[in-house]
Amino acid sequence: MKIILIGATGTIGSAVAPLLKKSHDVAEVAHSHGALRVDLADKDSIRRLLSGLGRFDAVVCTAGQARFGALDELSDDDYQVGLNNKLMGQVNLVRIGREYIADGGSFTLTSGVLSQKPTAGSSSISMVNAGLEGFVRAAALELPRGIRVNAVSPVWVSETLAIMGRDRAQGLPAAQVALAYRESVESKCTGQVLDVLDFV
Amino acid sequence: MKIILIGATGTIGSAVAPLLKKSHDVAEVAHSHGALRVDLADKDSIRRLLSGLGRFDAVVCTAGQARFGALDELSDDDYQVGLNNKLMGQVNLVRIGREYIADGGSFTLTSGVLSQKPTAGSSSISMVNAGLEGFVRAAALELPRGIRVNAVSPVWVSETLAIMGRDRAQGLPAAQVALAYRESVESKCTGQVLDVLDFV
Repeated sequence: MKIILIGATGTIGSAVAPLLKKSHDVAEVAHSHGALRVDLADKDSIRRLLSGLGRFDAVVCTAGQARFGALDELSDDDYQVGLNNKLMGQVNLVRIGREYIADGGSFTLTSGVLSQKPTAGSSSISMVNAGLEGFVRAAALELPRGIRVNAVSPVWVSETLAIMGRDRAQGLPAAQVALAYRESVESKCTGQVLDVLDFV
Repeated sequence: MKIILIGATGTIGSAVAPLLKKSHDVAEVAHSHGALRVDLADKDSIRRLLSGLGRFDAVVCTAGQARFGALDELSDDDYQVGLNNKLMGQVNLVRIGREYIADGGSFTLTSGVLSQKPTAGSSSISMVNAGLEGFVRAAALELPRGIRVNAVSPVWVSETLAIMGRDRAQGLPAAQVALAYRESVESKCTGQVLDVLDFV
């Protein structure tokens, strides 16, 4: 398959890329590095990317910004970053990508464990992740030509915890998180929220 | 208790109002009728309302716009209506209302069955409803002074189905949907998504 991987230089994307490359042709896209770039908050940027790569079989997105912060400190802008970038950015990958993707193709988006298991400071991120999951469940019912859409819901990634100075054993290595993305791409499932712990 | 009911003239609000009035002092607020009005999409309007009513014990919101439509027909504006009004409008009731609400007060917001059980045409509404549920789960962890927040998730309401020319027996009468709102106000639960079918 020809797969467009958005967020390829991120912590999870860096693990998804080599896994998918074992069996597929992967176009690696990042926000600010490399030859292929996209700004998820900008629909025109998404359309330029997806219209310029020829026919493809899958879009995998491991990118998307949303802001962590205390409920009494998050600003309107903080909420809007999550809504415009991680939520509508990924929604727009589907809305625009459906015009260019091959029959039977798939979209694999990223939500996160905070959707269902919040923590103090996650009100915006939990909202965005849960909203994305709601979109995925619904959009799957309407995609034509056998096109599929799923969300992967990662737990905390060990590499991220290490950077934060926290115990990496409390998370899952990115290489194991990546397995759920492969499942979404290679299986026939649609409208699902894949819990990464189910594929380790 | 002194309760602010937003959406008091709507189908569900019209049933919640008399139920709550049996035991409480209810200030009825609508978008475009009556003495008390609010535009959920406008933070200033929300602040004017909530800062002008004196101390209150509960906010119940049965209002919020989001647009139904086919995935390939919903416009950017259609998505933004749901994000700005039903989602961030209700989020902002909590963000602003927390400054004015009494100790131990509660917020009861409205999501909907399409969050978890989508149908063709619900991609925006499912996204908005699920996002609101994610916010409620998270925000409950951070509200001070014993303040609570829940969402009620209504199924289709019989009165709405009748207006649409559909079989009202496929829905639940608004008077029964209202029971879940009362439960949220009068119980001690927080961070919950209340399924209206559990309180009939």
